[in-house]
Amino acid sequence: MTTRREHDLLGDRDVPAEAYYGVHTLRAVENFPISGTKISIYPDLIAALASIKLAAAKSNQELGLLDDVRANAIVAAAEEIRAGALHEQFVVDVIQGGAGTSTNMNANEVIANRALELLGRTKGDYHFLHPNEHVNMSQSTNDVYPTALKLAGYSGIMRLVDAMAVLRGAFEAKSEEFKDIVKMGRTQLQDAVPMTLGQEFSTYAVMLGEDEQRLKEAVLLVCEINMGATAIGTGINSHPDYAGLVCRHLRTTTGIPVVTAANLVEATQDCGAFVQLSGVLKRVAVKLSKTCNDLRLLSSGPRVGLGEINLPPMQAGSSIMPGKVNPVIPEVVNQIAFEVIGNDVTVSFAAEAGQLQLNAFEPIIAHSLFKSVNHLRSGCLTLAEKCVSGITANREHLRRGVERSIGIVTALNPYIGYANATEIAQQALVSNKSVYDLVLEKKLLTREQLDQILQPEVLTQPRSFAITSAGGKTEVVTVGPRQID
Amino acid sequence: MTTRREHDLLGDRDVPAEAYYGVHTLRAVENFPISGTKISIYPDLIAALASIKLAAAKSNQELGLLDDVRANAIVAAAEEIRAGALHEQFVVDVIQGGAGTSTNMNANEVIANRALELLGRTKGDYHFLHPNEHVNMSQSTNDVYPTALKLAGYSGIMRLVDAMAVLRGAFEAKSEEFKDIVKMGRTQLQDAVPMTLGQEFSTYAVMLGEDEQRLKEAVLLVCEINMGATAIGTGINSHPDYAGLVCRHLRTTTGIPVVTAANLVEATQDCGAFVQLSGVLKRVAVKLSKTCNDLRLLSSGPRVGLGEINLPPMQAGSSIMPGKVNPVIPEVVNQIAFEVIGNDVTVSFAAEAGQLQLNAFEPIIAHSLFKSVNHLRSGCLTLAEKCVSGITANREHLRRGVERSIGIVTALNPYIGYANATEIAQQALVSNKSVYDLVLEKKLLTREQLDQILQPEVLTQPRSFAITSAGGKTEVVTVGPRQID
Amino acid sequence: MTTRREHDLLGDRDVPAEAYYGVHTLRAVENFPISGTKISIYPDLIAALASIKLAAAKSNQELGLLDDVRANAIVAAAEEIRAGALHEQFVVDVIQGGAGTSTNMNANEVIANRALELLGRTKGDYHFLHPNEHVNMSQSTNDVYPTALKLAGYSGIMRLVDAMAVLRGAFEAKSEEFKDIVKMGRTQLQDAVPMTLGQEFSTYAVMLGEDEQRLKEAVLLVCEINMGATAIGTGINSHPDYAGLVCRHLRTTTGIPVVTAANLVEATQDCGAFVQLSGVLKRVAVKLSKTCNDLRLLSSGPRVGLGEINLPPMQAGSSIMPGKVNPVIPEVVNQIAFEVIGNDVTVSFAAEAGQLQLNAFEPIIAHSLFKSVNHLRSGCLTLAEKCVSGITANREHLRRGVERSIGIVTALNPYIGYANATEIAQQALVSNKSVYDLVLEKKLLTREQLDQILQPEVLTQPRSFAITSAGGKTEVVTVGPRQID
Amino acid sequence: MTTRREHDLLGDRDVPAEAYYGVHTLRAVENFPISGTKISIYPDLIAALASIKLAAAKSNQELGLLDDVRANAIVAAAEEIRAGALHEQFVVDVIQGGAGTSTNMNANEVIANRALELLGRTKGDYHFLHPNEHVNMSQSTNDVYPTALKLAGYSGIMRLVDAMAVLRGAFEAKSEEFKDIVKMGRTQLQDAVPMTLGQEFSTYAVMLGEDEQRLKEAVLLVCEINMGATAIGTGINSHPDYAGLVCRHLRTTTGIPVVTAANLVEATQDCGAFVQLSGVLKRVAVKLSKTCNDLRLLSSGPRVGLGEINLPPMQAGSSIMPGKVNPVIPEVVNQIAFEVIGNDVTVSFAAEAGQLQLNAFEPIIAHSLFKSVNHLRSGCLTLAEKCVSGITANREHLRRGVERSIGIVTALNPYIGYANATEIAQQALVSNKSVYDLVLEKKLLTREQLDQILQPEVLTQPRSFAITSAGGKTEVVTVGPRQID
Repeated sequence: MTTRREHDLLGDRDVPAEAYYGVHTLRAVENFPISGTKISIYPDLIAALASIKLAAAKSNQELGLLDDVRANAIVAAAEEIRAGALHEQFVVDVIQGGAGTSTNMNANEVIANRALELLGRTKGDYHFLHPNEHVNMSQSTNDVYPTALKLAGYSGIMRLVDAMAVLRGAFEAKSEEFKDIVKMGRTQLQDAVPMTLGQEFSTYAVMLGEDEQRLKEAVLLVCEINMGATAIGTGINSHPDYAGLVCRHLRTTTGIPVVTAANLVEATQDCGAFVQLSGVLKRVAVKLSKTCNDLRLLSSGPRVGLGEINLPPMQAGSSIMPGKVNPVIPEVVNQIAFEVIGNDVTVSFAAEAGQLQLNAFEPIIAHSLFKSVNHLRSGCLTLAEKCVSGITANREHLRRGVERSIGIVTALNPYIGYANATEIAQQALVSNKSVYDLVLEKKLLTREQLDQILQPEVLTQPRSFAITSAGGKTEVVTVGPRQID
Repeated sequence: MTTRREHDLLGDRDVPAEAYYGVHTLRAVENFPISGTKISIYPDLIAALASIKLAAAKSNQELGLLDDVRANAIVAAAEEIRAGALHEQFVVDVIQGGAGTSTNMNANEVIANRALELLGRTKGDYHFLHPNEHVNMSQSTNDVYPTALKLAGYSGIMRLVDAMAVLRGAFEAKSEEFKDIVKMGRTQLQDAVPMTLGQEFSTYAVMLGEDEQRLKEAVLLVCEINMGATAIGTGINSHPDYAGLVCRHLRTTTGIPVVTAANLVEATQDCGAFVQLSGVLKRVAVKLSKTCNDLRLLSSGPRVGLGEINLPPMQAGSSIMPGKVNPVIPEVVNQIAFEVIGNDVTVSFAAEAGQLQLNAFEPIIAHSLFKSVNHLRSGCLTLAEKCVSGITANREHLRRGVERSIGIVTALNPYIGYANATEIAQQALVSNKSVYDLVLEKKLLTREQLDQILQPEVLTQPRSFAITSAGGKTEVVTVGPRQID
Repeated sequence: MTTRREHDLLGDRDVPAEAYYGVHTLRAVENFPISGTKISIYPDLIAALASIKLAAAKSNQELGLLDDVRANAIVAAAEEIRAGALHEQFVVDVIQGGAGTSTNMNANEVIANRALELLGRTKGDYHFLHPNEHVNMSQSTNDVYPTALKLAGYSGIMRLVDAMAVLRGAFEAKSEEFKDIVKMGRTQLQDAVPMTLGQEFSTYAVMLGEDEQRLKEAVLLVCEINMGATAIGTGINSHPDYAGLVCRHLRTTTGIPVVTAANLVEATQDCGAFVQLSGVLKRVAVKLSKTCNDLRLLSSGPRVGLGEINLPPMQAGSSIMPGKVNPVIPEVVNQIAFEVIGNDVTVSFAAEAGQLQLNAFEPIIAHSLFKSVNHLRSGCLTLAEKCVSGITANREHLRRGVERSIGIVTALNPYIGYANATEIAQQALVSNKSVYDLVLEKKLLTREQLDQILQPEVLTQPRSFAITSAGGKTEVVTVGPRQID
Repeated sequence: MTTRREHDLLGDRDVPAEAYYGVHTLRAVENFPISGTKISIYPDLIAALASIKLAAAKSNQELGLLDDVRANAIVAAAEEIRAGALHEQFVVDVIQGGAGTSTNMNANEVIANRALELLGRTKGDYHFLHPNEHVNMSQSTNDVYPTALKLAGYSGIMRLVDAMAVLRGAFEAKSEEFKDIVKMGRTQLQDAVPMTLGQEFSTYAVMLGEDEQRLKEAVLLVCEINMGATAIGTGINSHPDYAGLVCRHLRTTTGIPVVTAANLVEATQDCGAFVQLSGVLKRVAVKLSKTCNDLRLLSSGPRVGLGEINLPPMQAGSSIMPGKVNPVIPEVVNQIAFEVIGNDVTVSFAAEAGQLQLNAFEPIIAHSLFKSVNHLRSGCLTLAEKCVSGITANREHLRRGVERSIGIVTALNPYIGYANATEIAQQALVSNKSVYDLVLEKKLLTREQLDQILQPEVLTQPRSFAITSAGGKTEVVTVGPRQID
C-alpha cells in the first residue's frame, strides 16, 4: 500500500496515499473500534459538516483572514461533499470519544486534501492548506460539532414529519371510509358505549397531526447554532464579526432558518435542545406504539379474537402453523417505538453527564437521535403503505356487537336513572338477555321510545334530552343531536 | 362506630356516619392498599375536581337539566372544597386501578353529602341528591379525571416556573458579582481557555430561563380539556351545548385558559400532553443535575480539589471526619433529578399501555408528574436559598490558574500557527515551564506582543486580528475585542 | 416550647426539649424540605440502624473501647427502637443530601438521648454520652448507612418473596382447577393451536416461582456488609478486630447471614448490589405486568371481548356506564410495575453518579428500592386475594372456540403436509367453513382419522406419529402422547 | 437477473436464481426496510440457528421421521454455515416484525437450498426437501428463535466476560504498581482521609471481578432452551422423545450446557432470562461508567485539575487548542454505558409487551442485547489496552496532598475527641495552617505522638488504640495496624 507520512502531537504516522482523511482520522479509527458503523451512514451529518466549513471559509475570506485561493478551494471541496461526494472518507465510528473532535477533524482533513487536489497539489501538503489552520479557521469542534448535529437533526426531523403526514393521510382516508360503521367502544378493555369505526380511526390521524406540530415546534430549538463560540463559547480566536457572518452564510447555504445562540458559553455546554427533541420523539413513539397495539388487538382472530378489522397479509406468519397470518407491520413499528424510548434514556444520561463548559458525550446523543428519527420515519412509511392503507372492516360483525351489547344501557341513564340502568345491566349479564328486551319487560320505556333513544348512529354524538323528575316519572322530551334551542 | 348503609352494584356496605365519602370510596380504599398515600396530598387535584363539579353543575343548571336547589347546593359544596375544606375526605390511594373512577367517585360522594348537609338533609340521602345522577351529571370519569389532572398540572407547573425564576435570579446575581473574576474554562475536564466566573454562572441562569420558556409552552398543552366527552369522547348523555358551557365556566372559575379539545374521542384516550410535559420536566431535571454536578466539582476540596468556589456550609458533613462539610444541597437536587428522570420512564410506560378508547393508567401518570413537579419546585427553592445565594469565589486561586495554564497558548494560534503552538504546549507540559517564558525563549513573539495578546480579560471574548503569512513571518496587526473596522 | 441548646460546627441551635433527636437532625430537617415523607415510613430501616448501633456498641465494649455503663445503655436504647419504639423521632426526609449522614446522625442522636435518659441523665448531656464519640464509635456513615440499607432491603425482599408465593399459590390452584378446560392458544394475538386453560395459568405460577428464585439469589448480594470500613473503607479509626466482631454481633441480632465484604474500600463506593436488586425487581415487575395484561385481555367483554375468564367484580366501574365492571385489580398492579420500572432507571442514574470513594446518592437509591419492594408486595397480595382466587372460566365458550378454529389445521401437518394444510386454512378463512369439513370434502383424511388426530385434549401435548411418504400417501401410524416405544 | 419462481400463501414471487434464501425471506426484506442492518452482523446468531437445525435434523432422523438422505444433507449444510459459510444470505433486517419468523424462515430456506445443492438438485426444488416440512420439522419459530437467541447470547456473554477479565488484569497490575503511593481519598468530592492509589485502583478490579461473577450466574438462565415446545409450548407436532433428543444433540454440537425448560408453555412466552441478562449488563455499564468518570476526574488538568494520574495520550484533543489531550478512551466507554442503559429500557418495554402465549418483540430484545454485549466487550478491551495499562501516577503531588490535608484530623479522633478535632479542622481551614501545627500549638498531643499517629501508610488501614478517658486525659496506648493480639 502506498502511503504518505503525516504528523501530529503524538508523532508520525503513515496514511494510505489515496485517503482523503489524515492522521487524526487514522488515530480515531484505531481508538474507537466499537460499533463498526461509520459516521458516513448519516449523510445529513456529512453534508452539514461540509456546509459549515463552506460558510466558515466564506466568512473568513470576507474578514480578510483567508485568501481567495484557499477559500475558494475549500468552498469547492465542501460543495462536492454536500452533493454526495467523498462520503466514504468519513470513517470514524459513530460511537467515539473526544466530544466529536474526530468527526470534525475527519471533515477538516477530507476537505483540506480535496481542496489541495483541486489546487493541483498533493494530498498532505498541509503547509499550503492546513486542516486546522485553514479549514477549521475561526472554529472549534465545540461549535462545529453541535451545529452540525443540529443541521442534520433539522433535516431528519423534517423528513420524519413528512412521513408522519403520509401515515396521517392513510388514517384519515380510513376514517372517512369507515365513518358510518357503528361499533362498541371500549374502556379498560370492557365494552363501553357505541362509536363509529371512523371516529376510532380519526383519533390516530389526530394524534399524528398533533405530534407533527410538536416536532415542528421542537425543531426550532435546533435552529439556534453555536458558530462563533469556538473553544468554550467565549469566541477566542474568532473575529467579532465572524459569528454573524457565518450564520448568514449557513442560512443561505442550507436554507435552514438558523440563528446564533444568544449566549454562546451556555450554548456550548447545553444539550437541552437534543433532550427536548428526544422527548418529543419519545412522545411520537409512545403514541405510535399505542396505535399499533390497537391495530393488533382489533384485528385479533380470525376466529377467537375481536375480529373487527383485517390487516392486509404481508407474509406467511408461521413456520409451523399453516395459513397463519400475523400483524407483522404493526409489530415492527412497536419495536421501533421501544428502541426510541430506550434511546431517550441514553440521551438523558449523556446530557446529564456533561461537565462544566462542554458535553463530551454528544456523539452518542447524535447517534441515538439519528437512529430514532430514521427508524421512526421508516416505520411510519411502512405502516402507511403496507398496513393502514389496506385495512378492511367487518361491518356486520361490528353492528351485531352493538346490538347485543349491555353498554347501550348507558344511553338510558337520563330516562330511567343510573340505579335502574345498573339493575338492567346486571340482569342482562346474568340472563344473557338484551337490554332492549329487559327494559320492555320492566315497562320502563315503550318500544317506540327505545327505538328512538337507541339508534346506534345517534348514540355516537351528544344530544339533547330533558328529565322531568316530577313523580319519579321520566319524560323523554327530545332526542337527536343538536335539535333543541 | 355509627354507620349509615349505602348500596352499589355489589351490594350493601356500612359507611362511617360522619364520612362524607360513600360506598364507592370505601370499596376503593379496600381495593387499593398500595402506597398508603392518599390523593389528598395533592390539594391542587382536589381543588380541580371541585372546580369541575362546580362548572358542570352550573352548566347543567343553565341547560335546564338540574334544578336550582340541587345545582346551588353542589356549587356551594364545591366552593368550600376549593377553599380547602374537606380535603381529608379524599382518601383513595394515589396508586389506584380503575382509570381514576375512584377519585372521581370520591369527589362525587363528598360533594353530594356536603351538598345534602347544606340542604339540611342527612348524608346518604341520595334519592334527593345523587353522586352519579346529579353531581356527575353530563360527566364521566373519562372526561372529569384527565381534565382534573390537567388543571392541577397547570397550577403545579406555574408554581414550578416561579421557583425556577427564583433560582435563576440567584444565579444571575452571582453572574454579575463574579463578572470580573478570570478563570480557566474546561472542556472534557481538561484545562481549556480562559473565561470569567461570571460567564460560567450566567450559563446556569440562561439554562433555567430557557427551561422556564419550555415549560410555559408545554403547559399550554394541558389547557386542552376533555369536558363534554363523557364516556369515550362521543359525548353520549351530554347536551350538545354542554361542552362549550362547562369550558366557559371552568375558565372563569379557575382563571386557567382552558379550551375544549378539538376531537374529544382522541382527547379521551390521549396522554400525549402528559408525556410531553414529563419530557420537559426531565429536561429541566437533566440540566439542573448537570448544574449541581458542576457546583459540587467547582467547590471540591478544600485542599486537594478544584477549590474554585465555596458553597455555604449547611450541616456537619460526617459522623467520623471532624470539620468536613459536604455539598448537601446540590446533592439533594441531584437526587430529585434522578427521581424525575425515572418518573418520566414510568409515564412513558403508562402512556404506551393505553388501549383503544381510554388510558386506564392515568393515576400513576398523575402521581409521577405531580411528584416531579413538586420535588423540582422544592429543589429549586432550596438550591437558591440554601446554596447559590451564599456562594463565594476564590479569586486569587482562579487567577493563578489562568496564569500558569498551558491552555492560553490557544490564543497564540493566529500569530504563531497551530503547529508552533502545539510544540510550545508540549514543552510546557514536560518542562513545567510557562507558555509565556517558552514563547519568549523561542523568540516567536516579543514580550510586548505577548502582554497584549494574553491579557486574561481580553481572552474571554472574540477579538480581531490579522495574519500576514508572507515569508512565514506573522504580524500581529490588531488585538482587543471589536477594535477593527 | 421548651428547648435545650445544642452545638455543632455551625454554631448553637435550640432543639425542642422533648426531642430525642438533636442539632444535626434539626439542621437536616431544615435543609431537606423535599418530599414531606420522613424516613420513619421505613420501619425496617430504623430497626436496621438500631441493630447496627447495638452490634457496634457490643463490639466496642468487647474491645475495651467503650465502658460497660455506656455500652449497656446504648444497647438498651437500640433494643427499644428495634422493638418499635421512638420511630417517630426519625424525622429526616427520605430524599436528602449528604450520603445518608443525616439518617445516621438521626440514629446516633436518638439513641444517645434515649441512653442518657435510661442512665438517669438529661437529654443533650453529650459530655457523658456523645452521639458521635460513643454511639457512632468505630463507625462512619459510609459503612453504617449502606449496611442499614442492606439489612432493611433483605427484610423487605424476603417479605416480598412470601407475598409472591401467595400469588403463585393462587395461580397454581387455578391451574389445577382449569386443567381440563381446552381453549385456543394465541401467538401475536392471532389464533394458534389448542392448549388448556390450566396450562395457561400454570405459566403465571412458574414465572413467579422463577422470580422468587432470582430474588433469593440477588438478596444474597446485600448480605455483604460494610461495617469496619469507616470513612472510605480503609478502616481508619477502627480496631483490626472490630470488623469481624461487629459482623458476628449483627448476624446474631438480626438473624440475617451477613458477612464482611472482602474489599471494604470497594464496598464503600459500590452500589452494584442495589443495581442488581433493582434489576431483578424490574424483572418481577415486567412479568407481573405482562400477567395482568393477559388477565385483562382474557376477561375482556362481557359481550364484544374475548370473554374467556371472569375476574371477580370489586367495585362499580364507571360513574356514567351502569353495570360496568372493570379489571381494577390488575390495573393497579400494572401501575405498580410501571413505577418499579421507572424506579430502576432512577437507581441506575444514582448509582452511575457515584464518584471516587463514595456514592453520595444512596438515599434516593434506598427510597426507590424500598418503594418498589413494598408496592410490589402489596400488589402481589392484592392480586392474589382480590382477583386471581376468584377467577372463573367460561368453559363452553372456550371449547367452541377450539372447535371452530382454523389453527387446529396445524395438527394435520404431519399427515397432509404444510402445503396442503395451508390451502385448507386459506379456504376455511374465505368460506367460513370448518377445517374438519374441508379435509373430508377433499378426502385428505377419513372422518375416523380426523377424529383421532383432532381430539382437543391430545392436541395440547407432544405425540408420536409417523409419515409414510411413499406415493404421496400418508399413513397415520400412531397417535396419542407417548404411546410408541 | 436470472430468477426462480417460488410460492407461498400470498402467491408467486421470483427469487434471484443464485439466492439461497427464498420467497419468505424475500417478502421479509421488503416488509422491513427499517435499519438497513442485516441479521448477518450477528455471526453467533447465524451459527446458533445452524446448530439448531443440525440438532433437529439428527433428532428427527433418529426418531425415524426424517430419512438419512435428507437428514445428512441438512446436517452438512448446517455445518458449513456453522463454519462461517453463507452468512451473507441472512438478509433480514435486525428490526423485524413477526416474532422472529422471518429469521427462522431465512435459516430454513438457506439450509434447504444448500442441502438441495449438496444433493445435486436445483435450488427451489422444495418437493424434494422443503424448508418447512424438513428443515423446520418438529420445530416452530417459537422454539427455534428464542433458543437461537439464547445460544448466541451465551457465546457473546462469555466473550464479554473474557474481555472484562483483561480489563480487570490491567487494573490489578496498576493496583500492585501503585500500592505504596499515598493519596487523599474523597467522599462527596470533598477531601476525606488517606488511602493508597493502589487501594483505589483495586476497587475497579474488584468491581469487574464481581460483575464477571454476576454475568456467569445470569448466563445460566439462557441455558434453559425451548426446543420441543413447537408452536406455543404444548409440543404439538413433536414426538414425545424429541425434546430430550434435540437438547442432547445441541449440547454436543455447541458445547453449551443447555437443558430443556421445565415448563415449555411458560418458556415460550417468557423473556425473563433476557430481562435479567440485560439488567446485569446494565449493572456492568453503570459501574464501568463510574470507573471512567473517576479516571477522567483523577486525570483532570494538567494545571488546574486534580492531576493525580496521567492517561496515555491517544490523539490530539482539539481542533483549536494546541497540545490539548483529552480522555477520549474513558469517554467512549462512558457512551457505551449510556447506550447499554438505554437498551435495557428497550428490553423492559419489549418484554412487558408480550401477550398471552408469545412475545412478538424478541427481535428488538435480541438486537438490544447483542449490541450491549458487543459494545461492552469492545469497550473493555479498548479501555484496558489503550488507557489503563498506560496510566502513570504523580506520586509527589499526591503525597503533598496528604500532608497538607485537613482530613488527617480524623485520625486524631480517638486521641483528642470529635469535638476538639472539629475545632482544629475549622481553624486549619480558616488560617490555612496545617493540622499538625495546630495540634502542637494547642498542646493536645506531643510531636512524637503525632508522628506516630499520622504516618500516612498507617492511616490507610485499621489499627488498634485505646482511650483512657479518666480525667479527660487521653493516653495513646498502641498504634500501628494489627499489633495487639
